[in-house]
Amino acid sequence: MSDRVVVALDVGGTGMKCALVRPDGVAVRTERHPTDAARGPAAVVDTILDVAQGLIAKARADGLTPVAIGIAVPGVVDEARGVAVWSANVGFRDVPLRDLAVTRLGLPTALGHDVRVGGLAEARLGAGRGADHVLFVAIGTGIAAAHVVDGVAGVGAHGAAGEIGHIMVRPDGPRCGCGRPGCLEAVASAAAIGRRYGELAGDGRGDAASSAQGPEQSPGAAVTAAVVAERAAAGEPLAVQVWQEAVDALADGLATGQALFDVSTIVLGGGLAQAGDGLLGPLRAALHERMTFHREPRLVAAALGDEAGCLGAALLALDAAGVRATDAARVPDHQEER
Amino acid sequence: MSDRVVVALDVGGTGMKCALVRPDGVAVRTERHPTDAARGPAAVVDTILDVAQGLIAKARADGLTPVAIGIAVPGVVDEARGVAVWSANVGFRDVPLRDLAVTRLGLPTALGHDVRVGGLAEARLGAGRGADHVLFVAIGTGIAAAHVVDGVAGVGAHGAAGEIGHIMVRPDGPRCGCGRPGCLEAVASAAAIGRRYGELAGDGRGDAASSAQGPEQSPGAAVTAAVVAERAAAGEPLAVQVWQEAVDALADGLATGQALFDVSTIVLGGGLAQAGDGLLGPLRAALHERMTFHREPRLVAAALGDEAGCLGAALLALDAAGVRATDAARVPDHQEER
Repeated sequence: MSDRVVVALDVGGTGMKCALVRPDGVAVRTERHPTDAARGPAAVVDTILDVAQGLIAKARADGLTPVAIGIAVPGVVDEARGVAVWSANVGFRDVPLRDLAVTRLGLPTALGHDVRVGGLAEARLGAGRGADHVLFVAIGTGIAAAHVVDGVAGVGAHGAAGEIGHIMVRPDGPRCGCGRPGCLEAVASAAAIGRRYGELAGDGRGDAASSAQGPEQSPGAAVTAAVVAERAAAGEPLAVQVWQEAVDALADGLATGQALFDVSTIVLGGGLAQAGDGLLGPLRAALHERMTFHREPRLVAAALGDEAGCLGAALLALDAAGVRATDAARVPDHQEER
Repeated sequence: MSDRVVVALDVGGTGMKCALVRPDGVAVRTERHPTDAARGPAAVVDTILDVAQGLIAKARADGLTPVAIGIAVPGVVDEARGVAVWSANVGFRDVPLRDLAVTRLGLPTALGHDVRVGGLAEARLGAGRGADHVLFVAIGTGIAAAHVVDGVAGVGAHGAAGEIGHIMVRPDGPRCGCGRPGCLEAVASAAAIGRRYGELAGDGRGDAASSAQGPEQSPGAAVTAAVVAERAAAGEPLAVQVWQEAVDALADGLATGQALFDVSTIVLGGGLAQAGDGLLGPLRAALHERMTFHREPRLVAAALGDEAGCLGAALLALDAAGVRATDAARVPDHQEER
């Protein structure tokens, strides 16, 4: 049975990361496909199932045995019922994706939330490896978290657990996209950092930043969080101020998470974590300051990059198929020896 | 084996609530003993073990078979190691209470955190019965929570999970006993409400309130939260303001809990919950206002009163003994028929 693989898909608003993954966590084939969400949810579901079917066929052609499918989507995901409850990016609303996949493809299928499966992968295979209690926090356009205990991510009663981006940290802060004031996401997401810098620069770049969809930089375009990080590192006073405001808010959010969850390791992922020590250094200091009687968690950068979601979908699929991920998956160095 | 019982002790700073509890959750004998923490931790441990030994002897004299012991203590409790890590009220610091009990009494023993076992009891037997995802929040002198999923309370990596009293809700708020500004506990605990009322009344009652240890009322003494609740209900403007401030802060705290945990039911316990609809009504409204894309949890008052901790300790003991609480425990009405 060493030829078993699972089919893993991480469906985002723009593209899908797809792979065939062995029980030891090694992807033997990877593919990327556009999501093209503008076509509407039915077309996106068709694409997901087509891509999965294609990967199943390719696996079989290579003499491999696909045993299960794992699909990760953003938004609110009811993992127990296998339903994509609400995914603004992808246009899903109450899509019974698991049952649709089982019906068409005939394999056990697991549906997961993109950040929760990303956290699962980081906790089991990545930066949280070896820790039983991990909080994975993804900071990008939005902010979301996954609380992983003993290799299982908490889902919640309605598939909406882990929304750390929508905890209130600044009562008089900017209004969040969700409608409430002062959410962590409205203060400290990559989008919020760029917007805040533009506002304080007083050149109208704030509006541009708030509608910016990509990381592109062109003359006159909004300043991204990455650029704010660079300028802060170079000592530009405005960037230093904006960066520190975001760090303080993030530290408040992480301290809240630690008060409630009491983890041993916090793993920071998402685009903003790519600022590396420019984020981790000051954030560790600010978090340390906020720990009183609590044990201070280890704060580390994610290790799996943007593959975490796809790997996490594979882990869900392995769980669904009753295949225990082999130890090799926990020791990537061993992959070289196989 | 219908004569099996467990020995349950809920150890507080002032007193211990103790009971012999059957697998169906019925206490067949209850006792209260003073903790007298001023004698030091060794003497308190001796008392705990003496009381447990006494209950074991009484059970046997009545023809019952004690099968396990459950002990709940406040503070930071490492349930996996059975160690009372830090309990300011009781004076414990790294006391291996479970092993001490096993050595002296020869029965399987479980150690739990008072609020977490209280949440366990409310989730399994009380106001959260029937819900798989419950957040129990105890509001008294302090504020703490227990997150109970499928009848198991989250403990955390170091036994410190659920510290909802120490999440920051008001960046410019009063300093908490833990040293940080704006903790929920510093704004919305019963102690904080009394203190705030005293401060705004401008008569120096604030200081008295902050050092008040009991619910006593005497002429000139601090106004308690219960009195503030009464005066707010009667329409006294200052009390209305102070109460609403607390309600708003509590709603922020509960909304944060809901964002992270996504429960179906929030159970409010502790002294402040005795304000009943005076608290639940406005708090439901304020929480409703804060729910945007999240599912709104049911918000209910605790059902077990100050017996929750002792019952929860019994549940831990039953779990430790491998005795499944019988269904009767979930249908208290059946007790009448036995």
